[in-house]
Amino acid sequence: MFELKVLCKEETEKILKINTVIRSVEEVYRQKALGETEVFPLIFHEFTPGVADMDIKSGWLKGSGLFGLKLVSWYGENAKKQLPALIGTILLFDDKTGAPIGILDGAYITGIRTGAAGALGAKYLARPDSERLLIVGAGHVAAFQVAATLTLFPNIKEVMIYDAMDYKSAEEFVQNIQSVLVNNLHVPFNESIEFVAVKDIKGATGKSDIIITVTPAREPIIMAEWVKPGTHFSCIGADMSGKEEIDPEILRGARIFVDDMEQCIHVGEIEIPIKKNIIKKEDIAGEIGEIIAGVTKGRENDEQITVFDATGTALLDLITAKLAFDEAEKMNLGTSVNL
Amino acid sequence: MFELKVLCKEETEKILKINTVIRSVEEVYRQKALGETEVFPLIFHEFTPGVADMDIKSGWLKGSGLFGLKLVSWYGENAKKQLPALIGTILLFDDKTGAPIGILDGAYITGIRTGAAGALGAKYLARPDSERLLIVGAGHVAAFQVAATLTLFPNIKEVMIYDAMDYKSAEEFVQNIQSVLVNNLHVPFNESIEFVAVKDIKGATGKSDIIITVTPAREPIIMAEWVKPGTHFSCIGADMSGKEEIDPEILRGARIFVDDMEQCIHVGEIEIPIKKNIIKKEDIAGEIGEIIAGVTKGRENDEQITVFDATGTALLDLITAKLAFDEAEKMNLGTSVNL
Repeated sequence: MFELKVLCKEETEKILKINTVIRSVEEVYRQKALGETEVFPLIFHEFTPGVADMDIKSGWLKGSGLFGLKLVSWYGENAKKQLPALIGTILLFDDKTGAPIGILDGAYITGIRTGAAGALGAKYLARPDSERLLIVGAGHVAAFQVAATLTLFPNIKEVMIYDAMDYKSAEEFVQNIQSVLVNNLHVPFNESIEFVAVKDIKGATGKSDIIITVTPAREPIIMAEWVKPGTHFSCIGADMSGKEEIDPEILRGARIFVDDMEQCIHVGEIEIPIKKNIIKKEDIAGEIGEIIAGVTKGRENDEQITVFDATGTALLDLITAKLAFDEAEKMNLGTSVNL
Repeated sequence: MFELKVLCKEETEKILKINTVIRSVEEVYRQKALGETEVFPLIFHEFTPGVADMDIKSGWLKGSGLFGLKLVSWYGENAKKQLPALIGTILLFDDKTGAPIGILDGAYITGIRTGAAGALGAKYLARPDSERLLIVGAGHVAAFQVAATLTLFPNIKEVMIYDAMDYKSAEEFVQNIQSVLVNNLHVPFNESIEFVAVKDIKGATGKSDIIITVTPAREPIIMAEWVKPGTHFSCIGADMSGKEEIDPEILRGARIFVDDMEQCIHVGEIEIPIKKNIIKKEDIAGEIGEIIAGVTKGRENDEQITVFDATGTALLDLITAKLAFDEAEKMNLGTSVNL
C-alpha cells in the first residue's frame, strides 16, 4: 500500500506563486540542457476530430528524483455540461522505487507553467529595458503570460492585448486583468501600467518590444514588415503540426531558441518555416536551457529579432507539480489517501 | 473540482473474483474484435538497464465509455527496501467529458487479468475435455493462471508446475497453491486435483493438454518433439522483443491466435518464428476476440496444436479497473477525494 498525496485545482491555485513557478521552470530548462532530463514520446488521440481529444505527456526529471505524466483532455463541448473544456491530471512517481507519490489537477499548473515559459523566453532573449508588451490571444493562458512577464520586467509600462477572433474578448480581458493579477495570480498591483485592448495589430506590433503569441492559429497573425528591430517573440500557441502564429519571414535571420529541438521541429512555430526552407534546422541557435546553463549566448545585439518557440513538455508540469507538493507540505494543505 | 474514486491494492484483492474478471476480459476481447476499442502506442523507458524501467499502456474502451492508462514500474532491487518489484497504477477517465473517474493500484489487477487471459486462450482453443495442465514458470502470475484455468476447466485432474530457473520455487508453489487458491483467489477447494512440481519438463510436456508459459525466457524452454497432438499453448511471458518461451517449430502448422496482432508481431511469442520465416504473418488465424465474437473458428480438430500469444494491453486493465469500481460501489468500499 502506498500513501498518495492529492491536490485539487483550488489548492494548486492557492499554493502556486508565479515567481517560484518561474524559478522552477527555469531550473528544469537548465537541467534539460545539461542532459538531466528525458522527455518520453507523446501519445495523442482524437476521439472526435475537432471536438474531443486527449494527450499523454511524460518524462523523467533525474535532478528532482521523479518521473511522471500529465494527461490532458480537451472536450470542446464541455461548457454545455458546466465543465471546463481543458482538464488535466498529473501523476508523479519516485524514480528510486517506481512508487506513486501524488496526483494533482493539471489545469492551473498548465496555465501557470506556460506563462512562466513565455516570460522566460523574454528574460533570456528580449532587451532588458523592454517597455511594451503585446499579448496576441485573449484566451485562458494570456493572464499567466502577463503575470509572468510583469514579474520579470519591472520596466513594462504598457500591455496591449489583441484577439484576432474577437475584439470583445480583448476588451473584457483588459477590464478584468488588474483584478485577476492581484486576486488570483498574487501579482502586486501596479497602477503605472496601462492595459489596452488593440484593434490595429500592425500598429501594436510596430511599437512592441516583446510579443507573446498564445493562439490556436493556423495562419500567421503578425507580418514581418510590421516588426521593429530588436523585437522579441515568445511563440507559445503552436503545438501541433500545421499551427503557426507569425509570418515565417520573421524567422529569417532571427536568433531562434526552442524548448525542445525535436518537438519544435515537428509541431512548433518553426515547423512551417523549416518546411518552406525559410530557415534550416542548423539556423536554430539551441534550446533555451543552453542560455540558462551558460552554454550559449541569447540575444547578440539590440537590433536582432529573437524568437523563443515553446511547445511545452511534461518536464514543466512535473517540476511545477513537485513545487506544489513541496509548498503544500509547508502550508499543511492537500489530502493523503492509501493506494 | 472532480470527485476521484480511489482503490488500494488490498481493496482490489477483496473485490475482484476470478470468474467475473474472466467475463470482463472475454468481453473486452470481443469488443476489440468488433472495433469498439483503441490501443494507444506503448511508452517504455529503461532507467537502468536490467534494474529499473517503466511503461505506460493506454487505450480507449468505447463500449464501456472510458479511456485511461496503466503505468507499471519494475524496480528489480525494490525487495531490499521492502517494496514490491512491480508497482502498477491505473487511471480511468470518462470518455464523454474527459474528466478523471478514479485511480487504483494495478498490481493485483495485472496479475488477475493476465490469469484470465491465459485461461481464455485455453477456453477457446484447448480441447474441452482437457485434464492435465502444465504451468511453466512459478512466479507471481502463475497462481492466477491456475485459478483461472481451474475455473474454466472443471475436468482438470493434475496441475504440473515447472520452473526452469529454480526447482525450489516450483516446490514451494505446490506447497502453497491450495491455500492461495482458496484464501486469496476465492477459488473453491477441490481435493481431487493433484498439484505436482516437475523436474522432467520433457515428460511433463508429453502428457499435458494445456500448457501455459509465464516466464521472462529468451530461449525456448519447450521443444517441438516433446509435444503430443492436440496440445494447447497459452504463451503469456513474451512481451518484449527477443523474448520467447517455446520452440518456434511448435508454431509451424499450429492454429495461432493473438491478443493484438501488431503488438504480438513486434514483441510477442510469434515475433521470432516470423523473423525466422517458420511462420508468416498470414499464418496467424486472427485475434482471440474474433473467436469470442463468432467471426472465426478456434480449434479445428482434436489433433491440432493451438497457440494463444498474449502480450497484454491496457484494455484488460481498464475493463478490470472498471469492474473493481463497480463492485466497490456495491460493497461500499474505496475512498473518494477531491481532485
